Amino acid sequence: MRAEHDRTVEDIIRLTEIPAPPFGEEARAAAYLAMLQQHGLEEVEQDEAGNVMGRRRGFGNGETLVVAAHLDTVFPAGTDVRVRREGTKLFAPGVGDDTRSLAVNLAFLRALDAAGIRTRADILFVGDVGEEGLGDLRGVRHLFTKGRHAGKIDAFLTVDSPEVDRIVTGGVGSKRYRVVFRGPGGHSFGAFGLVNPMYAMAEATRGIGAIQVPRTPQTTHCVSIVSGGTSVNAIPNEVRIEVDLRSRAPAELARIDAEFRAIVERAVAQENATRDTRDGTVSAEIIPIGDRPAGGTAHDNPIVAAATAAVAYHGYTVSYEDSSTDANIPMSLGIPALRIGSGGRGGRAHSLEEWIDVEREESLRGMSASLLTILAAAGAELD
Amino acid sequence: MRAEHDRTVEDIIRLTEIPAPPFGEEARAAAYLAMLQQHGLEEVEQDEAGNVMGRRRGFGNGETLVVAAHLDTVFPAGTDVRVRREGTKLFAPGVGDDTRSLAVNLAFLRALDAAGIRTRADILFVGDVGEEGLGDLRGVRHLFTKGRHAGKIDAFLTVDSPEVDRIVTGGVGSKRYRVVFRGPGGHSFGAFGLVNPMYAMAEATRGIGAIQVPRTPQTTHCVSIVSGGTSVNAIPNEVRIEVDLRSRAPAELARIDAEFRAIVERAVAQENATRDTRDGTVSAEIIPIGDRPAGGTAHDNPIVAAATAAVAYHGYTVSYEDSSTDANIPMSLGIPALRIGSGGRGGRAHSLEEWIDVEREESLRGMSASLLTILAAAGAELD
Repeated sequence: MRAEHDRTVEDIIRLTEIPAPPFGEEARAAAYLAMLQQHGLEEVEQDEAGNVMGRRRGFGNGETLVVAAHLDTVFPAGTDVRVRREGTKLFAPGVGDDTRSLAVNLAFLRALDAAGIRTRADILFVGDVGEEGLGDLRGVRHLFTKGRHAGKIDAFLTVDSPEVDRIVTGGVGSKRYRVVFRGPGGHSFGAFGLVNPMYAMAEATRGIGAIQVPRTPQTTHCVSIVSGGTSVNAIPNEVRIEVDLRSRAPAELARIDAEFRAIVERAVAQENATRDTRDGTVSAEIIPIGDRPAGGTAHDNPIVAAATAAVAYHGYTVSYEDSSTDANIPMSLGIPALRIGSGGRGGRAHSLEEWIDVEREESLRGMSASLLTILAAAGAELD
Repeated sequence: MRAEHDRTVEDIIRLTEIPAPPFGEEARAAAYLAMLQQHGLEEVEQDEAGNVMGRRRGFGNGETLVVAAHLDTVFPAGTDVRVRREGTKLFAPGVGDDTRSLAVNLAFLRALDAAGIRTRADILFVGDVGEEGLGDLRGVRHLFTKGRHAGKIDAFLTVDSPEVDRIVTGGVGSKRYRVVFRGPGGHSFGAFGLVNPMYAMAEATRGIGAIQVPRTPQTTHCVSIVSGGTSVNAIPNEVRIEVDLRSRAPAELARIDAEFRAIVERAVAQENATRDTRDGTVSAEIIPIGDRPAGGTAHDNPIVAAATAAVAYHGYTVSYEDSSTDANIPMSLGIPALRIGSGGRGGRAHSLEEWIDVEREESLRGMSASLLTILAAAGAELD
């Protein structure tokens, strides 16, 4: 991998600069499909969901390990995705989450071939769609539940974001909603005093932000997106928010979900009690837009032992984390699954200031740890 | 005016079909400048703001009455402004607000000349720019505060929209703002606990909605537009609102304006005190997007008496209204000012279905009422 490091960096830059907004992964998928083909995989194809994949056949009986990275980023179409380089740092939206991993998985393939390493299990390398946000894990969900490989996958590793020391063994469950607040609307001056869905939204948003959550099991909430209104001199007809609720524990997720619903209901009632409803009341419609199952891979599962040993062997202090990743789907189905890292350092994921460090030695150290995890999971031997 | 009615209708159509979007009044201004010249006015000119005007000299000592109509419409460039005629009805965006008045003021000029009427005061006929929306009354503001006539205008009548029975004696003041709440942003789960501009926005919005206002003088507020956020699983970088504050009374407008600013400041401080600022704090930028001064013309002012008598004499039931028009500027400066009508009927102003009725008798009745108001304000006698 050392000799190929510059190529890996070039691949990271090339793929990062192909926009892959939510539900718009086609261009990047096509480019990645071609790259998988160039790496000599079998059965290179795109499935119905848009995932691209190819098989590296093992010497066993067709047992299959999936090694995945996700194609999509959180950034909307039109975001400037050009990579800015400062020394060994690369700055660009999506560069670390998860574009680096797409390139790193190709580097793993080249390293396996160069070293003449064969694995017992087949390895299905996948670039999947729809990991982020409203994608709702649709790529991997399809892979495990509807695609032609459904029921035939024995283990799953998703290479997602740089940090190799943080092994994700827990799948954080999430519920996501769009809440549409509606009201009669009217002239800001002439109809002053009418109920305004803006204020119901504000009251609900404030309430959601104040929901108390435990540190363990980790539980979070976020009002992420807001829109509404037509003109500065009009009481709006409609205001919308999007809300993200997460927990490692199904019971906590259910609790904050109930609290969220009560807050929205109270905010609407309060607005209707506070202002004039002669032209109509304010209402709120709660529309589910995401539902990711919680799950986990037990720490005594061999795949966790393999990853722990590989990461520790490379000098890292291992920690186990809970997160919401493509691994949620197999975890919720009882299939051993982990998120492992692409190596190097990085930060500010999901922000426009996202960056990674591709300094060679640290990058290779992390990559080696993850490749070793893959080999242990797939059962390797030299030719 | 009766003999000239067809010409007035032709002028309405001709001027309506010259687009005059906000900040794009040049073509219509040039055409109107030429028309003012053809009507034999003195000192025909365009000022620095884009207003066009000409003086009809009186026999007094240079006392000046301005009779205005605004050149601009609310409709953006590219709007189809062709006039469709059905019987005595004309349909076109801007036809009544305020293009008809531009043509009617020319009809007044011809009527004065034909009847040999001289006035004590000079009458400055003005076609002004920037009355609508973000134009923010910039044409008349310039006329009264910066142009060469500033400080030399004694009374102001704006002929704006058809209805002559509703005399606008109160100028509703408004202040409009865009508030941009910014924060560091981050992952909704991984960065949970970071400050979120969404919550500062919600707290501020809630606070603005709760500002107490008197019924009299009528004072209002509205959070009208909101937007922000990039993805359901990201703490947003930026959230924006647009706010409309209005009052009939300058002191009340100043009070709620100060309260609004304090609310935004407190909301930001509260968010920064409540959540984690390790990646940066939340801030709010308050950007003015509109500022119209409040004012009024006392009902015992002779100009109100004159307008009331003229309108009632023509058989209309007079009502006094508060609105936001070009008259706000002189009203705020203590200069007697009114909005009067261009006559006839009309409706659906500010919509693409805007229409006026140019049926001759009703049109002439309304025009006569407004011309009589002008004559009373300017002090008339026959040659």
